[in-house]
Amino acid sequence: MERFSNNISDAYLLQKIYCKTMTRKNKLSCGLDLDFDSNIENALECSSGEGYDFVCLDIVNPEKKTHFLKAASGDKLGDKTKPEFMLIGQEWCSLVVGKVSKWLTLNSGLDGQKACAENAVTQELNFAAYLSLPAVLVYLQTQDCASLAKTIYTHLLTSHHGMTVWVNVPLTVGPGKINGVEEADEENTSHEKQDSWHWWNKFRCLCGQHNRIGLALEITADLPDELVLKQWLGEPIRSVVLPTSVFLTNKKGFPVLSRAHQFLMMQLLRLNCQIVVTGGNEHDSGLRVYQQYVNHLFSSHPPLGQYEAFAQGYEDYLQAPLQPLMDNLESATYETFEKDPIKYQMYEEAIYKCLSKKSKDNKSDSHLVLMVLGAGRGPLVRASLRAARQAKVKVKCYAVEKNANAAVTLELLRQHEWMNDDVTIISSDMRKWKAPELADVIVSELLGSFGDNELSPECLDGAERFLKPDAISIPCNYTSYLSPVSSQKLYNEVTGAGLLDKEKRHDAAFETPYVVRIHNCHELAEPKKVFYFSHPKPKADNNSQISENNQYLSNVRYAELSFDVNKSSMLHGFAGYFHCTLFDDVCISIVPQTHSPGMFSWFPIFFPLLTPISVKQGDVVNVNMWRCCSATKVWYEWAVTEPYTSPIHNPAGRSYTIGL
Amino acid sequence: MERFSNNISDAYLLQKIYCKTMTRKNKLSCGLDLDFDSNIENALECSSGEGYDFVCLDIVNPEKKTHFLKAASGDKLGDKTKPEFMLIGQEWCSLVVGKVSKWLTLNSGLDGQKACAENAVTQELNFAAYLSLPAVLVYLQTQDCASLAKTIYTHLLTSHHGMTVWVNVPLTVGPGKINGVEEADEENTSHEKQDSWHWWNKFRCLCGQHNRIGLALEITADLPDELVLKQWLGEPIRSVVLPTSVFLTNKKGFPVLSRAHQFLMMQLLRLNCQIVVTGGNEHDSGLRVYQQYVNHLFSSHPPLGQYEAFAQGYEDYLQAPLQPLMDNLESATYETFEKDPIKYQMYEEAIYKCLSKKSKDNKSDSHLVLMVLGAGRGPLVRASLRAARQAKVKVKCYAVEKNANAAVTLELLRQHEWMNDDVTIISSDMRKWKAPELADVIVSELLGSFGDNELSPECLDGAERFLKPDAISIPCNYTSYLSPVSSQKLYNEVTGAGLLDKEKRHDAAFETPYVVRIHNCHELAEPKKVFYFSHPKPKADNNSQISENNQYLSNVRYAELSFDVNKSSMLHGFAGYFHCTLFDDVCISIVPQTHSPGMFSWFPIFFPLLTPISVKQGDVVNVNMWRCCSATKVWYEWAVTEPYTSPIHNPAGRSYTIGL
Ligand SMILES: C[S@@+](CC[C@H](N)C(=O)[O-])C[C@H]1O[C@@H](n2cnc3c(N)ncnc32)[C@H](O)[C@@H]1O
Ligand SMILES: C[S@@+](CC[C@H](N)C(=O)[O-])C[C@H]1O[C@@H](n2cnc3c(N)ncnc32)[C@H](O)[C@@H]1O
Repeated sequence: MERFSNNISDAYLLQKIYCKTMTRKNKLSCGLDLDFDSNIENALECSSGEGYDFVCLDIVNPEKKTHFLKAASGDKLGDKTKPEFMLIGQEWCSLVVGKVSKWLTLNSGLDGQKACAENAVTQELNFAAYLSLPAVLVYLQTQDCASLAKTIYTHLLTSHHGMTVWVNVPLTVGPGKINGVEEADEENTSHEKQDSWHWWNKFRCLCGQHNRIGLALEITADLPDELVLKQWLGEPIRSVVLPTSVFLTNKKGFPVLSRAHQFLMMQLLRLNCQIVVTGGNEHDSGLRVYQQYVNHLFSSHPPLGQYEAFAQGYEDYLQAPLQPLMDNLESATYETFEKDPIKYQMYEEAIYKCLSKKSKDNKSDSHLVLMVLGAGRGPLVRASLRAARQAKVKVKCYAVEKNANAAVTLELLRQHEWMNDDVTIISSDMRKWKAPELADVIVSELLGSFGDNELSPECLDGAERFLKPDAISIPCNYTSYLSPVSSQKLYNEVTGAGLLDKEKRHDAAFETPYVVRIHNCHELAEPKKVFYFSHPKPKADNNSQISENNQYLSNVRYAELSFDVNKSSMLHGFAGYFHCTLFDDVCISIVPQTHSPGMFSWFPIFFPLLTPISVKQGDVVNVNMWRCCSATKVWYEWAVTEPYTSPIHNPAGRSYTIGL
Repeated sequence: MERFSNNISDAYLLQKIYCKTMTRKNKLSCGLDLDFDSNIENALECSSGEGYDFVCLDIVNPEKKTHFLKAASGDKLGDKTKPEFMLIGQEWCSLVVGKVSKWLTLNSGLDGQKACAENAVTQELNFAAYLSLPAVLVYLQTQDCASLAKTIYTHLLTSHHGMTVWVNVPLTVGPGKINGVEEADEENTSHEKQDSWHWWNKFRCLCGQHNRIGLALEITADLPDELVLKQWLGEPIRSVVLPTSVFLTNKKGFPVLSRAHQFLMMQLLRLNCQIVVTGGNEHDSGLRVYQQYVNHLFSSHPPLGQYEAFAQGYEDYLQAPLQPLMDNLESATYETFEKDPIKYQMYEEAIYKCLSKKSKDNKSDSHLVLMVLGAGRGPLVRASLRAARQAKVKVKCYAVEKNANAAVTLELLRQHEWMNDDVTIISSDMRKWKAPELADVIVSELLGSFGDNELSPECLDGAERFLKPDAISIPCNYTSYLSPVSSQKLYNEVTGAGLLDKEKRHDAAFETPYVVRIHNCHELAEPKKVFYFSHPKPKADNNSQISENNQYLSNVRYAELSFDVNKSSMLHGFAGYFHCTLFDDVCISIVPQTHSPGMFSWFPIFFPLLTPISVKQGDVVNVNMWRCCSATKVWYEWAVTEPYTSPIHNPAGRSYTIGL
């Protein structure tokens, strides 16, 4: 979210923001799947009249199948496609999604027939590209999809157009229904053959998870269990294919979806995909009613929460994490921070509780020394002064800020807003500042999405010199969290980011964490704790032989985490979060399970994997995480060691470091 | 072998040939592992007197362990290492392999201790590098090796020296012996914990299979079963550590190895590794006897066969496959071909059998028209003429050759050697030649290591025009074979090749097959048939609806192969071979199981995988292979679909094609 620097090249950002604007929409886009037979002109007019935004049309006449078998060269296509394709104006082609002949995409046992089918598919794809259709639909009907994958992949790599491929995959496959052939196989294999997610997974892996291959998820009457549904949510769903036969009829004779289907559709609609209504008109009121029903569903979404509203448009949009220590933030960035409705409230409460406790313990009537470290444009100074007033405690306040520009703002605030309070502005790095007195309380907010990744530990270490022995730090401690995630979308985004900087190692983009509103994603297990930091630093235990090297006295960390995976998936990386105790029971958190409601200052962090790892149901995922420190920088390294071992990512900080 | 073009940049070849010379040796290199206590000067002198080539020495005194625990900075190293390291001449450092403290490489439960151990290991590595030691020994004693791997990997990536790391791994680990701790774990995990190959595999995967990490395989008294032994043979074994305790004593009181150990040692010595004798002197005759015994084993190798002798120095040395169609071969290359002691013999026999049969069928007394297609410098013409004389058949011989330079040689041969025979030299591409008459027999050798990869099918298709209806082609048919292999050595070679050409995609080197004498390799299963070609082409079946597209009439091919893997391993790629029927029962083959003895014209071909795939015991490996053709080129594409799916390699021939 706002927490990004412009490490990622501007061109990329621009391009991304452009996409963002393009895909952010308030109306659902709904298409109608038509038979080849229908008169196109009428059908188009009528479907648009019925409120549909686009149509899906066969590229060639399915009736001409036998003829086609003999054709190997393009010049025969003329008799098999619709004349309208050529005769009607080009504009409406942008409203047509081409359907590749279904029967061609079945892997035929006959070698000759297979080769012929591959040629024919290529021919249809070329023709669709020639017409500049925005997308084509390809039907995945079996797990024997290697040759189809090769044909599609070759087409995407060799033709010069932007057409996307929507791979139609049914949500479930009934036993014995595959390909019409009875299955009597060994249990395990047969299980995978009946699991359409495995078809899809094989297909997209063969195609190198190409970013122009999207999923057209076909809803079935039977719904799989919740785990299977979740499995799909990390996939790049471009459209949802909704057969009219899936609808029930309500008392008034109108089509409606079952509760379970409605719930599923609501989840899918969050992913910004398009809808394709397919199948015959099974209700009396015309095809319009299906579209109306889906649009009704879409608009009956509960209104977005503060966090969701803020995050809209940032979904799956990669940002380089802030480096507030090395870089100076802009005033506008502070302004965005300050809009957070929750963060400052929690800080004020924590400061209030802390000052109340301090003043109870503190017998004398003297003032308390409170230092805001990294004061920015002053919101935490303001919160501190308010809390002090409320707790009826006299405070002497220092506002320390290393951004000299922000210090100007602070000085102005001191003169105009805080002239009746005892506030001193210090334009200095807290690690170098020679404090004139010791602090009772220090208040700071130097947290990144992964807790320590904006170097709060190192900065606050630098402040230890000027703390009273019983000083309190707000925050008291913070913990990072990690969970394994599957998201082809994020994988494609990282690949895209990697293509931009040709100067860097080709895999540098995969050895960098990103701040991102993770959205089109499937979390394979709940997050677990990674690193813990507390302030002030715990005292060294002098009895311990190894005291000097105790890692809790340094900021070096190592953790190994194990996750049980209960559904097969591709592991693309890890989502990172933090939980922070400000004081006593006052916490802020971006861990999904304990997220502070409405707080939008932080999006999660994403640690990618260079090579996606195929995880099978029942596998354990083991990840190793290191926090490494040198004299000038800090960085993370990570590696997976189960179900099998990846290389260590970002060794020696070769691709990504945070400057001290 | 000789079948390579200079596609791979010359610098690389030079570098490689340099290495080749360096590593080709006739004497075994044998080192002695010494205690820290021993007086180095004496020990060195004495061990060299005893016939050892190098010694292994602790970098620091193992006694100083407790002291060291407190040390975090380098300045403490002074009291812990040997003064000799600094005081004696630098030259002998090249004869020392440094041993990293064993106790440091155990993963300690205590975080502080672990961090300290990491620092200490780095310190020892830095010191060894400072002394320019050629190698260090690191001890892998548990499967908890993530932090050790990170330390070593970081060292290799950040320090500027050529020191290699020998990772000492015991061949077997007795149950309960791991780390001295009793194991009472879940069966499967515990199994892997006791399998030292898994320790090694985890370690080298974490280190990105870095090419300066080699294996120091420590022989144990107990030997594992043959499958486990084979599992090690694909690993980059740099040295074999041989404890004196493993030796038996023969009647005369001398140390000897058991038969099983001898057999193992013979296999390992083939890999050109060095030997380290370790442990106390357990025999009366001094340490010399161990070295003498091992050298005796080494020199009692049976003499090399013709193939092995020819192949010596080419082991695991990657070559770009020949492109004899696009490029013109040099005379020297033909000369190497012609040295093969078997190939021409088999051709002569096949031609003899073919002509005999033809003349029996042929009632009239007219001559037979025999065409040698791709005659080179004439050896197959010579074989044909000899076979005809022997079969007492009159032949009219055409020698067709597209290399105009070789045609000059042929013309000279015609005038001086074949002046009494009916030989016509045609300087032309067989695909374009307008033959003055039709052929009874065509003889060609256009085979690559993978059979069809030098485009024999396409060339011979071009000759179909001038065949009599009952014409015979020698060869009649050929079949390619493929087997899954594990070889970190080959993987590292491909990685190295990829670093040379910065112009290409970073993964282009992994989408290219190589001709290579595969040596340091573990074949995971026996080869299986892939593509089959026969000549003349089978006639089209006119009844078949799909006749025009029958792939056996085109040279497009697709095959899917399944292999059962009976031992966990890393899959790095596939080895390719061919089997060819020249005529009747006369065959030539480079498939290991049926290899024509002594024939050295072809080394195997290797198809790499971009990302090595971890294969578990009992897994099935599924590979898909395509032979693709366009108007101007031919190429292969390949993908693995079990145990999980890789991307399609070389899609659309983007990294490698063979020009038509
Ligand atoms: C995340 S911003 C928080 C600003 C403000 N306290 C708020 O909550 O809106 C962190 C601030 O700390 C400052 N900062 C970071 N490291 C610092 C250091 N070592 N010494 C002083 N200020 C520092 C940055 O310049 C930045 O203004
Ligand atoms: C592998 S060499 C064999 C040479 C020789 N027959 C021998 O066995 O030593 C193949 C030869 O075929 C020639 N050749 C390849 N394609 C050809 C074509 N289309 N027409 C004519 N000659 C060809 C090459 O120039 C080369 O001399």
